[in-house]
Amino acid sequence: MTWTVYLSGEIHSNWRNDIITEAGGKNLPVEFTAPVTDHAASDNAGTDILGSEESSFWKDHKGASINAIRTRTLIEKSDIVVVKFGEKYRQWNAAFDAGYAAALGKKLIVMHPEEHTHALKEVDSAALAVAKTPAQVAEILEYVTVKE
Amino acid sequence: MTWTVYLSGEIHSNWRNDIITEAGGKNLPVEFTAPVTDHAASDNAGTDILGSEESSFWKDHKGASINAIRTRTLIEKSDIVVVKFGEKYRQWNAAFDAGYAAALGKKLIVMHPEEHTHALKEVDSAALAVAKTPAQVAEILEYVTVKE
Amino acid sequence: MTWTVYLSGEIHSNWRNDIITEAGGKNLPVEFTAPVTDHAASDNAGTDILGSEESSFWKDHKGASINAIRTRTLIEKSDIVVVKFGEKYRQWNAAFDAGYAAALGKKLIVMHPEEHTHALKEVDSAALAVAKTPAQVAEILEYVTVKE
Amino acid sequence: MTWTVYLSGEIHSNWRNDIITEAGGKNLPVEFTAPVTDHAASDNAGTDILGSEESSFWKDHKGASINAIRTRTLIEKSDIVVVKFGEKYRQWNAAFDAGYAAALGKKLIVMHPEEHTHALKEVDSAALAVAKTPAQVAEILEYVTVKE
Amino acid sequence: MTWTVYLSGEIHSNWRNDIITEAGGKNLPVEFTAPVTDHAASDNAGTDILGSEESSFWKDHKGASINAIRTRTLIEKSDIVVVKFGEKYRQWNAAFDAGYAAALGKKLIVMHPEEHTHALKEVDSAALAVAKTPAQVAEILEYVTVKE
Amino acid sequence: MTWTVYLSGEIHSNWRNDIITEAGGKNLPVEFTAPVTDHAASDNAGTDILGSEESSFWKDHKGASINAIRTRTLIEKSDIVVVKFGEKYRQWNAAFDAGYAAALGKKLIVMHPEEHTHALKEVDSAALAVAKTPAQVAEILEYVTVKE
Amino acid sequence: MTWTVYLSGEIHSNWRNDIITEAGGKNLPVEFTAPVTDHAASDNAGTDILGSEESSFWKDHKGASINAIRTRTLIEKSDIVVVKFGEKYRQWNAAFDAGYAAALGKKLIVMHPEEHTHALKEVDSAALAVAKTPAQVAEILEYVTVKE
Amino acid sequence: MTWTVYLSGEIHSNWRNDIITEAGGKNLPVEFTAPVTDHAASDNAGTDILGSEESSFWKDHKGASINAIRTRTLIEKSDIVVVKFGEKYRQWNAAFDAGYAAALGKKLIVMHPEEHTHALKEVDSAALAVAKTPAQVAEILEYVTVKE
Repeated sequence: MTWTVYLSGEIHSNWRNDIITEAGGKNLPVEFTAPVTDHAASDNAGTDILGSEESSFWKDHKGASINAIRTRTLIEKSDIVVVKFGEKYRQWNAAFDAGYAAALGKKLIVMHPEEHTHALKEVDSAALAVAKTPAQVAEILEYVTVKE
Repeated sequence: MTWTVYLSGEIHSNWRNDIITEAGGKNLPVEFTAPVTDHAASDNAGTDILGSEESSFWKDHKGASINAIRTRTLIEKSDIVVVKFGEKYRQWNAAFDAGYAAALGKKLIVMHPEEHTHALKEVDSAALAVAKTPAQVAEILEYVTVKE
Repeated sequence: MTWTVYLSGEIHSNWRNDIITEAGGKNLPVEFTAPVTDHAASDNAGTDILGSEESSFWKDHKGASINAIRTRTLIEKSDIVVVKFGEKYRQWNAAFDAGYAAALGKKLIVMHPEEHTHALKEVDSAALAVAKTPAQVAEILEYVTVKE
Repeated sequence: MTWTVYLSGEIHSNWRNDIITEAGGKNLPVEFTAPVTDHAASDNAGTDILGSEESSFWKDHKGASINAIRTRTLIEKSDIVVVKFGEKYRQWNAAFDAGYAAALGKKLIVMHPEEHTHALKEVDSAALAVAKTPAQVAEILEYVTVKE
Repeated sequence: MTWTVYLSGEIHSNWRNDIITEAGGKNLPVEFTAPVTDHAASDNAGTDILGSEESSFWKDHKGASINAIRTRTLIEKSDIVVVKFGEKYRQWNAAFDAGYAAALGKKLIVMHPEEHTHALKEVDSAALAVAKTPAQVAEILEYVTVKE
Repeated sequence: MTWTVYLSGEIHSNWRNDIITEAGGKNLPVEFTAPVTDHAASDNAGTDILGSEESSFWKDHKGASINAIRTRTLIEKSDIVVVKFGEKYRQWNAAFDAGYAAALGKKLIVMHPEEHTHALKEVDSAALAVAKTPAQVAEILEYVTVKE
Repeated sequence: MTWTVYLSGEIHSNWRNDIITEAGGKNLPVEFTAPVTDHAASDNAGTDILGSEESSFWKDHKGASINAIRTRTLIEKSDIVVVKFGEKYRQWNAAFDAGYAAALGKKLIVMHPEEHTHALKEVDSAALAVAKTPAQVAEILEYVTVKE
Repeated sequence: MTWTVYLSGEIHSNWRNDIITEAGGKNLPVEFTAPVTDHAASDNAGTDILGSEESSFWKDHKGASINAIRTRTLIEKSDIVVVKFGEKYRQWNAAFDAGYAAALGKKLIVMHPEEHTHALKEVDSAALAVAKTPAQVAEILEYVTVKE
């Protein structure tokens, strides 16, 4: 049995690689998926592919909609969704993904620094684990997929 | 036919009353629901009812979970979910609610000031309308519920 | 038990009133719902409420999305969906509504002139009745809701 | 992870091959599916297999129903549904498929010439991307399936 | 709380009235629904309303489809489905209704004479109660709806 | 908006009445439902209504199945499920109800004495609140249904 | 893409092998599944495995329930369900399977001799094809799975 | 076709290995899954991975939640759920799993010693087979997966 794990949220640190590398070292039966993490490519996806827009609202709309083809599909196909909140930015798309995953009954793991505990309490309350580090997430994945 | 509209998000301005008052003036067949908007009561719901906690994490967890009984049920029972983002705070619970509503196929209306357009593009892209004012939301509700 | 019947499709003839009047005469336990049938109001719903657009594509997009709040909700709340195709225009929204209703397991009644039989064969094949007149639809509603 | 993409709609041009060839050239992890595109075989499927009918209505009904075994199953099994509207014909089955896919939460990409923008606004509003060319669709598929 | 109970199956005896009368005498909070039990009207529903057919297959098809608008909707709206098999006839529609109800998670009560026990074992195995008389069904309804 | 709350579990103390009385005193918009709490009637429901059985296994099976018509329907119709574990007995049906409710996405409140904390950890982990007294449950119901 | 086809119904003729052989000859991408077709083994499954019963009702119940583990699972996993009615016996389990499959949205093909047309009209009306021979079923499977 | 069977419940005897060994000897197309059966590891999963807790309630909560990532996912991915109740302990998690599986429509097989018949009647009533030994379960698995 292979598990599918979607890695949502912050794209400015190497946390995805950290988890994937640890899971690879443990040889876990996990397939990881993720959004496009190239910030510029993600922001411009709509206009790069479908043509420019004068209004920044519609430029964003076209881009976000193409990204949604990917992100919503991958969340729907996943068993576990890990959502990482970093120190900076609004990161509303991370919280949106967490809500989307929760409503579909996906098993939610949230990762964030301690300082966000109060602001993220509604998100954390929907999660089955709240981690601080990629190593903890990898340990959880090991426990749930191969521990006997 | 009565429509149920859940008003999610910011609790520091009077936007809910503005919409409800306008809808009342138009005599719309809409039942409005909302989270608890008393900030202190919401923060302390868990410990006020179920007993104190030493750890702030678990205090928040207990409170957020009791609030979730209300908010998730009301979102699930609604036809339309309006999510308002204000100027201040992280408002991750608003984005979580938007994701939760979107995954359930609820009709999403997002309201926010123009300055948040880029940061909210993923949330806006899941919405069927992006408004700036309570009056616009009330007009949408009038159009979808009673216009012939 | 009250039945909810959504009347989708053509907005250039009086077929909705014909059905509603006949059903009223028979005192059927049916609540009828419908899209906005004021053509201009429907076309301009997005820009009238949420502000003008330079691009006609986005003007249409805003309007169609606000109408979708209404039409998709009402289809989802209905037991029976009647879709009428008239002689003129592309009427792609009528066929879209039929597909939307069929996928949700709504009981579909299609009404159209005989000349469209071949072009509408996929839509008709998803229907439980293919009628030619409002009177036939009203008779079906009588049969399914009150005949003993 | 393999993505399944159903190619619905117009059967009088080579657009399906164009997309499949481009996706093949990019080596995308996509399995494409489609309706029967042999027009005569599709029209006669019912009577060819199950015996002739005197009435053209029932001939069409039998054929459309056998085609529905294929088309509805493939839409249900797909992640993404691409619906192409051409310049000619009513193409109500294309709009029906779009509605069917939308109600199931499939990610919808619509492709059509600019002249159909107003007539297709309800269909476009349910889509996450509106393209004009097969090359654009292939680029979207590349972006959502393999871009890092 | 009102319970909805659909009474499916045999239409040649008074078993529906027996149950309804007993439940009425006990003042149970139950709304009963049923198919059209006028045999001739049911057989001819399609051609009476939508016009005659030369082929008996399509006559039956039109009639059964109109009846399906009623029967499938009422099963879907019910909490409990009672299916009665009599001594005579094939009664395949009764077994079809039982399967339809079981797949939807409806609570199934089957009523039939003892001689059918072996032939109905698959249907009985999907039921939560197998009764022999209308009085037993009424007692079950009393127990599940009002017993304290 | 009325909330429906199912009160599952222990039938040897007055905890249901305590909650209902407190909720009534607060005039909460809550409709309470419950299993049959007459122990003997519940145990004998199958044989009392449908005839005696020689085997105690099948006697229990018939009784439990008739009770399941009630309990599963009421859980499915509820917004909130409260499950009370007492000091005595195995109470496997209470844990079964909790699992059943959790899988359906019902909002779960568990009530039990502190001594059961470790043995009930899997059940508690699926709950949004773990209470010790009927008064706490009533306070939660007040908070989620009427607090502003 | 592999299609899964469940072959339900009559077990006294070779119709399953006929379809499987024809499909094999055409090299169709179809995996066939079926109930246990050894009549005696099927009838005795419950008591052979789980121990004897004095009552024939409970013997049948145990056997039918074990068969249901297989048949309901296989119907749920299938894309297409073929239900064959033969000349003899009540075959209520075949009609039950048809209803079960229809409620789950499975694509239904019914096969029966012409003499059963009227008695099977409700079942036929839920089907997308009504065939008379295994060869016709195999042709339909070829058309829907590999025709270009 | 491969079947997935989740083995829930008692972790103090070798029943899982007994079933797996017998199924292996019969070469059944079954993939078995199970919870973590190392009692200490299971109890400490939360604090071992995510850090210690002062309160035993929250220690249990963290551990049970991590285990739930595994157990709920595996139940959701299974076709058949076998739940074993042993002679000792409360085993509320076993009954919870049974309820969880039943609500999802999983095919439930319960295994327990005869002495628990009355106490487990609600759980047994939701099962399609009640076995006493691992050999019986293996025979059922053979019958439903490979018997012709």
